[in-house]
Amino acid sequence: MTSARGSSETARLETFADGVMAIAITLLILEIDVPHVAPGGSLAEALGRQWPSYAAYVVSFITIGVIWVNHHHLFNVIERTDHTFLILNVLFLLTIAALPWPTALVAEHIREEEARTVAAAVYGGLMFAIAVMFNVVWRYAARGLRLLLPDVDPVALRHVHRSYLSGPITYGAAALIAFANAWVSLGIYAALALYWLLPGSGVRIDRLRPPG
Amino acid sequence: MTSARGSSETARLETFADGVMAIAITLLILEIDVPHVAPGGSLAEALGRQWPSYAAYVVSFITIGVIWVNHHHLFNVIERTDHTFLILNVLFLLTIAALPWPTALVAEHIREEEARTVAAAVYGGLMFAIAVMFNVVWRYAARGLRLLLPDVDPVALRHVHRSYLSGPITYGAAALIAFANAWVSLGIYAALALYWLLPGSGVRIDRLRPPG
Amino acid sequence: MTSARGSSETARLETFADGVMAIAITLLILEIDVPHVAPGGSLAEALGRQWPSYAAYVVSFITIGVIWVNHHHLFNVIERTDHTFLILNVLFLLTIAALPWPTALVAEHIREEEARTVAAAVYGGLMFAIAVMFNVVWRYAARGLRLLLPDVDPVALRHVHRSYLSGPITYGAAALIAFANAWVSLGIYAALALYWLLPGSGVRIDRLRPPG
Amino acid sequence: MTSARGSSETARLETFADGVMAIAITLLILEIDVPHVAPGGSLAEALGRQWPSYAAYVVSFITIGVIWVNHHHLFNVIERTDHTFLILNVLFLLTIAALPWPTALVAEHIREEEARTVAAAVYGGLMFAIAVMFNVVWRYAARGLRLLLPDVDPVALRHVHRSYLSGPITYGAAALIAFANAWVSLGIYAALALYWLLPGSGVRIDRLRPPG
Repeated sequence: MTSARGSSETARLETFADGVMAIAITLLILEIDVPHVAPGGSLAEALGRQWPSYAAYVVSFITIGVIWVNHHHLFNVIERTDHTFLILNVLFLLTIAALPWPTALVAEHIREEEARTVAAAVYGGLMFAIAVMFNVVWRYAARGLRLLLPDVDPVALRHVHRSYLSGPITYGAAALIAFANAWVSLGIYAALALYWLLPGSGVRIDRLRPPG
Repeated sequence: MTSARGSSETARLETFADGVMAIAITLLILEIDVPHVAPGGSLAEALGRQWPSYAAYVVSFITIGVIWVNHHHLFNVIERTDHTFLILNVLFLLTIAALPWPTALVAEHIREEEARTVAAAVYGGLMFAIAVMFNVVWRYAARGLRLLLPDVDPVALRHVHRSYLSGPITYGAAALIAFANAWVSLGIYAALALYWLLPGSGVRIDRLRPPG
Repeated sequence: MTSARGSSETARLETFADGVMAIAITLLILEIDVPHVAPGGSLAEALGRQWPSYAAYVVSFITIGVIWVNHHHLFNVIERTDHTFLILNVLFLLTIAALPWPTALVAEHIREEEARTVAAAVYGGLMFAIAVMFNVVWRYAARGLRLLLPDVDPVALRHVHRSYLSGPITYGAAALIAFANAWVSLGIYAALALYWLLPGSGVRIDRLRPPG
Repeated sequence: MTSARGSSETARLETFADGVMAIAITLLILEIDVPHVAPGGSLAEALGRQWPSYAAYVVSFITIGVIWVNHHHLFNVIERTDHTFLILNVLFLLTIAALPWPTALVAEHIREEEARTVAAAVYGGLMFAIAVMFNVVWRYAARGLRLLLPDVDPVALRHVHRSYLSGPITYGAAALIAFANAWVSLGIYAALALYWLLPGSGVRIDRLRPPG
């Protein structure tokens, strides 16, 4: 069977995970204020001053969107669930659902030096946690092909394992860099979001299965 | 097959997109305040003064609703997805999910002259971006029938291409008109929302396929 | 076929409608404040003063929940959609998604005489609009069996038509009663929500089809 | 049939319930403030003072997540719905959707002695209500195998009945303990959330059916 839903056994997990990711991604807009303008003031200027909020919205939206695409790809090869796998997915979603908060934290404090460092480190710390949980979810499913389709190629599997490790390493490093220079750290988060938009980026988990 | 879900391969994308659109459309109500009334004041009057919020709610709700209907129609002829198509849909949803913010911006600033112009232009600018991304999503899927059902009529396809172009053109023009007269610009957004409610409006993408 | 999803053609509409109703119902809790307590003050007392918020939450939650159940039942006999039907459903959802706002309006202003009248009338006015749109959606689908399964019993259909009319009549009347006595009006809204919880209440649209 | 969706008749209920639970769980993050920092103040310190918000987020997120997993398990053996069952699920969801509110209540008032007691009791009271409604939903479905698959083992069923009773008992007791010592009460809520993460915890409702 070639269903993008993986299998009916995973359907409800996918629906719940999609729901949480769709909500978290859509709540991001609530963090952008509608500025009040004093009499004689300019709305255009007030909106201009809010650029960190727009940038943070775009970066976090793309980041959650790309995580959704990758989670989607996982279920092309995962065909079963068990109690532990469901619980691990809940913990994975716990980290994703929290992202609107550090997004607002960065947007609010990007102009203050100490606070910018703290906000960039918190943002990176949460992204690190998301990436770790993504690996935990995947590795639990993949160990001994526990929850996978039986025809997965073991050599390609080892390649996917290695590729997914780049997530926690990159975000962990970017979070630590915040203590040296927060702008560099924030630049890495933005660059990663844009990089993932490129065709050819990301792990091609669909190559895990024989063609046809 | 005649499934309104297009195919199982697109099901999870449709669910995610429906989720984001359903949330964005439902968050619109959060932008309408519950007015506080000073002792001796009138709630009826306070509610009356909020008419821009109600109008903005209705216009943006119908607009997202009509976009959802059209996105729904697309998947009557799209039967496959690929990585790039998922990413393009994420970017399309990024623009839709942002709509509650300019909706509130317009409602809040409609009484101030400079701010009204800026708010109307920002609203139209985002609508322009939504319409552009809708075209990008559609054109990517349709080019060379990349992701479409094989029995789509190429002549009808060219007609759909042309029709969809009216979205970015109309909204781009209305956004520019804001700098001449914001009320005209806002009137166009409202008129478009009402126009789309009419039977016979919109592209009949279901005519892309042979009957039966 | 006996699918509770009606048919695959209506599946995406049901998913979108379920999404909007699930979100509107869950946003209701955001209207209940977490009270701040001055030093020496009592949280228990502050929570006690908020009883209108709890009552409004329960009544509106049950009301949307019952509407969801009834919308769910409709799709046991509706098996097709068309463009106009999708648009009518969007307008129906426009009224439902607005309910958190008059819910908060009532909770906030229940202690002030003029404002209570206005709030009760607005709440009833929106419930009237929801009930009207529910009838419009249903009648459009049912006229000439346009979108219905072919085996629907026409005698039972006329009975359902009449039963659904009680919604707009009751809510329209309760909204008007608010101008005489807002407490009676609010009591009707609460009583209707509780009544619908009873087994045997509501229209048994599942009786529209022959047994088996 | 082995579908995790139970059956198509329960599909829309599961989708709606998943939607409400996904939204309630994701709204939890809105209760965590982005602290403002006075000039010369430290964001790191301000974030540190917010630890009750993070703890409350994690405990409530895991709790709703585990309830979702258990609700998911129920529909492995429930294959039908009726009007009363839908209504009972709406009432169950009414209690779950309310959880963001006492979560914020606890986080806000954990440092004040009287308020901490009240908040801990309210939190436990709502958890008690959720657990009661979970039992009501399950018992209604299970009585006389009303809505269950026919091959459910009656001996295992009695075991599940007993196991589910531990929920209301534990949360009811923890809510009462708040009046003696709110910290103990809050510690129980946290410990229960962590306990449920352990493999082997929870009722193995999948054992209700014969293997194969």
